[in-house]
Amino acid sequence: MDVNTYTDELVERAAVAARALAGASTEAKNAALEAMADGIMVNADALKSANAKDVEAAKEAGLSSAMVDRLTLTDKRIQSMVDGLGVVRGLPDPIGEVFETTERPNGLVIERVRVPIGVIVIIYESRPDVTADAAGLCLKSGNAVILRGGKESLQSNVAIGSVLQGALEKAGLPRNAVQVVDTTDRAVVDYLLVAEGRVSLVIPRGGEELIRTVVEKSKVPVIKHYKGVCHVFVDAAADLDMAESIVMNAKVQRPGVCNAMETLLVHVNVAAKFLPRIVPLLREEAVDVRGCEKSRAIMPDLQHATEGDYYEEYLGLILAVRVVDSVDEAIEHITKYGSAHTDAIITQDEATAEKFLSEVDSSSVMVNASTRFSDGGEYGMGAEIGISTDKIHARGPMGLRELTSYKFVVRGSGQVRA
Amino acid sequence: MDVNTYTDELVERAAVAARALAGASTEAKNAALEAMADGIMVNADALKSANAKDVEAAKEAGLSSAMVDRLTLTDKRIQSMVDGLGVVRGLPDPIGEVFETTERPNGLVIERVRVPIGVIVIIYESRPDVTADAAGLCLKSGNAVILRGGKESLQSNVAIGSVLQGALEKAGLPRNAVQVVDTTDRAVVDYLLVAEGRVSLVIPRGGEELIRTVVEKSKVPVIKHYKGVCHVFVDAAADLDMAESIVMNAKVQRPGVCNAMETLLVHVNVAAKFLPRIVPLLREEAVDVRGCEKSRAIMPDLQHATEGDYYEEYLGLILAVRVVDSVDEAIEHITKYGSAHTDAIITQDEATAEKFLSEVDSSSVMVNASTRFSDGGEYGMGAEIGISTDKIHARGPMGLRELTSYKFVVRGSGQVRA
Repeated sequence: MDVNTYTDELVERAAVAARALAGASTEAKNAALEAMADGIMVNADALKSANAKDVEAAKEAGLSSAMVDRLTLTDKRIQSMVDGLGVVRGLPDPIGEVFETTERPNGLVIERVRVPIGVIVIIYESRPDVTADAAGLCLKSGNAVILRGGKESLQSNVAIGSVLQGALEKAGLPRNAVQVVDTTDRAVVDYLLVAEGRVSLVIPRGGEELIRTVVEKSKVPVIKHYKGVCHVFVDAAADLDMAESIVMNAKVQRPGVCNAMETLLVHVNVAAKFLPRIVPLLREEAVDVRGCEKSRAIMPDLQHATEGDYYEEYLGLILAVRVVDSVDEAIEHITKYGSAHTDAIITQDEATAEKFLSEVDSSSVMVNASTRFSDGGEYGMGAEIGISTDKIHARGPMGLRELTSYKFVVRGSGQVRA
Repeated sequence: MDVNTYTDELVERAAVAARALAGASTEAKNAALEAMADGIMVNADALKSANAKDVEAAKEAGLSSAMVDRLTLTDKRIQSMVDGLGVVRGLPDPIGEVFETTERPNGLVIERVRVPIGVIVIIYESRPDVTADAAGLCLKSGNAVILRGGKESLQSNVAIGSVLQGALEKAGLPRNAVQVVDTTDRAVVDYLLVAEGRVSLVIPRGGEELIRTVVEKSKVPVIKHYKGVCHVFVDAAADLDMAESIVMNAKVQRPGVCNAMETLLVHVNVAAKFLPRIVPLLREEAVDVRGCEKSRAIMPDLQHATEGDYYEEYLGLILAVRVVDSVDEAIEHITKYGSAHTDAIITQDEATAEKFLSEVDSSSVMVNASTRFSDGGEYGMGAEIGISTDKIHARGPMGLRELTSYKFVVRGSGQVRA
């Protein structure tokens, strides 16, 4: 079959499933989520042996051990897929929620009602557990999903997809509500990205290059999950004990994720006190600390931070440090070098805090908390499909509600317009 | 100056203005809206003489009288711009609104706060009054706007833009919060559409071709204001007096707009009664009625409706009529031929009404009301920038709130993630 026919059929099956799913009851969707979790549990061995093929191929291809690690379906990760589906099952169904009601003077009653978006394409990289997580969220929000994972995890994704489709059928829902693209032919993605009007939304999750390519090619709306160049600013009025604990947490608790801190900004008034205190602690955790000239005047053994460092999402144990003269200079730095993901200020001064919260234009702005909290689970959404760095439709952590649209439902008794 | 430099500078000025505007007080924005209305009033004669040049050129170029009519700035239209700015001034400021607050078990308080989107580009066709309407809505929602009107209305738009910029300055807000593109070079639009990351949103308002071109070229998010192929379905259980009044209103009260009815669907059980009643009334209003085979069996003098008719947005006094066997067939017809804009059912049967409201996936679905109500003003939003036919970000009438994004504001007392 040629690739366009393959993709046409894929999209058409998704569209048919989406129409059926839009009217599915909460009970039916929850039953499917339960069957999906059961299916993964029961088929754990089969999933692991499919995954073993991917892992072997990855090792042969010489992928880094970090990549191989992300690719590997351990028992813990299988359990985490099962748990994730359970969490989504427990969340309230967003579909059908009436979130605004207006009665007009002419008697018309106008409701805004949440409805599914339709057909969603999710493009992601090596982690195969995303397959189950994303499928669960899309199903609960009434959307048909087409999942296109990384080529390294093809066997794993296809195996998981097949288990999920079996579960959907068992629960009486269309199996094509969840489809895994079972080829690594990039032409399928290219064709999906121009299927304007048939695919409603594309969500790319992954590295900068993947996201750039998708934005470049797509005629379908895209919600980007872009990089996180996150800052912590230690203000002159910071409680330095608190600053120490937040800075350490933001950098080292899990450095490989998008809400970890990449640049530390320190107010000049406290730099001479705070830097000699925090740098050794960071080094104890093996962090490579790179400083601006002013930092190096205080800590001469710091490596030099170049301008390039300030733009960098290290996703690892490296930290750029810069001393700034004021909250305004901190905000200016964040505006110029940041990625508008998550930025925090540590201060006991309320006016300074409010200025920072209002003027920093990032998806999450925080006072006296670790940037690592920028997460759907931590925000009480239950689960997230990712963290949007866009301002259109959804910004920051995206949960179930962010996977919906709405319609206006108007009830009248014969009104006509004058 | 070359066109890319021109556009770069345009976008850069907008970006600077957007940052200033994001923090502007409601009072300052309202003062600017008042000054804008005053400015238009005071400069009415100058605006009319700029407009006269456009009108003259349009006549010379042989534009249709309908086009010339849409282009002409009458006293009534000038008053309507002034009134529109007054309405927007009276609306609540959406910016800064906290629309969700969550307190987490760890003590973090998480708010979702409305913020502006940033830099918005609006591309529209011949009506110059859109310039003031769109500028007012964007200003109140804290967005800098770049307005690119039709080439026929260039002189008018530039003159209006200059009055608005003067008013902004008078009110102490950045004049570049509103910029009119003062050249008809299409390369400016092409360049704006690829200014991803610098332009936050593009809203095309106009004909099908304009919108297709924008979607085709844009790497910036687009909210489409697409065509309205709107339906009224007269069910077997309809009150036929009500059906008559709604059908007439939906077709003839203002046929040239997107929420006017284009196709009438009639249940077979009432067709023999309803068609002989409604067709003569429609013809009295000069409507060219075209029917399916079943309609023609009842009304043999009807013109034949082709399949092409069902896809057509006539925007005029033409109506396609089709007899259907059931509400399911009506829904199927709407799904296949409609544009998911606005569709109505006339029925006294509640179950049938609810089925229609739930299964028709359009931005507005109505029972026992005229499709002509699908409008921001009629829905109580005060004003609208247009009617989105997209499902991402905003659907249906878009008011001030739909011109905003949000951010998460997190307040802690030293929390770190475990």
